Amino acid sequence: MASTDIATDETTRLIASNKVEGTSVYNREGEKLGSIYNFMVDKRSGQVEYAALQFGGFFGLGSDYYPLPWNVLDYDVQQGGYVVNLDKAVLEKAPHYASGSEPTYDRDYGREVHGYYGIPYPY
Amino acid sequence: MASTDIATDETTRLIASNKVEGTSVYNREGEKLGSIYNFMVDKRSGQVEYAALQFGGFFGLGSDYYPLPWNVLDYDVQQGGYVVNLDKAVLEKAPHYASGSEPTYDRDYGREVHGYYGIPYPY
Repeated sequence: MASTDIATDETTRLIASNKVEGTSVYNREGEKLGSIYNFMVDKRSGQVEYAALQFGGFFGLGSDYYPLPWNVLDYDVQQGGYVVNLDKAVLEKAPHYASGSEPTYDRDYGREVHGYYGIPYPY
Repeated sequence: MASTDIATDETTRLIASNKVEGTSVYNREGEKLGSIYNFMVDKRSGQVEYAALQFGGFFGLGSDYYPLPWNVLDYDVQQGGYVVNLDKAVLEKAPHYASGSEPTYDRDYGREVHGYYGIPYPY
């Protein structure tokens, strides 16, 4: 997954939306938690609010979507994926939804998601 | 493409990344210019800088990618796509690149793209 054609840090400041989708997510112990399904963008401001981590189940079957505030995702070039400072046990109790039953993505939901991870909700 | 399950404006504040990709882009005359291929996000801040419009060629063959500042894209629920206030002639002369020859997405490029469309580059 490592990009050898990226010359400087400056050029890696941006990431393509379709590269984020499908990217693996690991915890601090290097254990794979799941992968990013998609992420939600404010249409007007262009600010990303959260990314949906597909987690649980077996090989994607029965897995749910766990919205993570964008700030909790740290991209790690070595692993070619995101690293989050979260235990599986914490994640299992986090806000989530099943495929086909997406929540109402209003500000209350945004506050709930950010609140769970102890991150101020500035939007 | 119209979503009938979206109850209020508040819930349509956010859009999923994978819904942006592939969305049609029209000019003010309702003429289809192309569709969004992907968009570039600042990894750290989560701010979208520009979206790549796939434009030109025939049925996607020979088409190039035209980065558009996020702000020039207006989502129109009626058309189920983005509307931009741009003539084809203006777009044809805009910064663009071929598939497989992506530019260096540094701040100079960001300034060039925003400058072409007369939009301040705040990043």
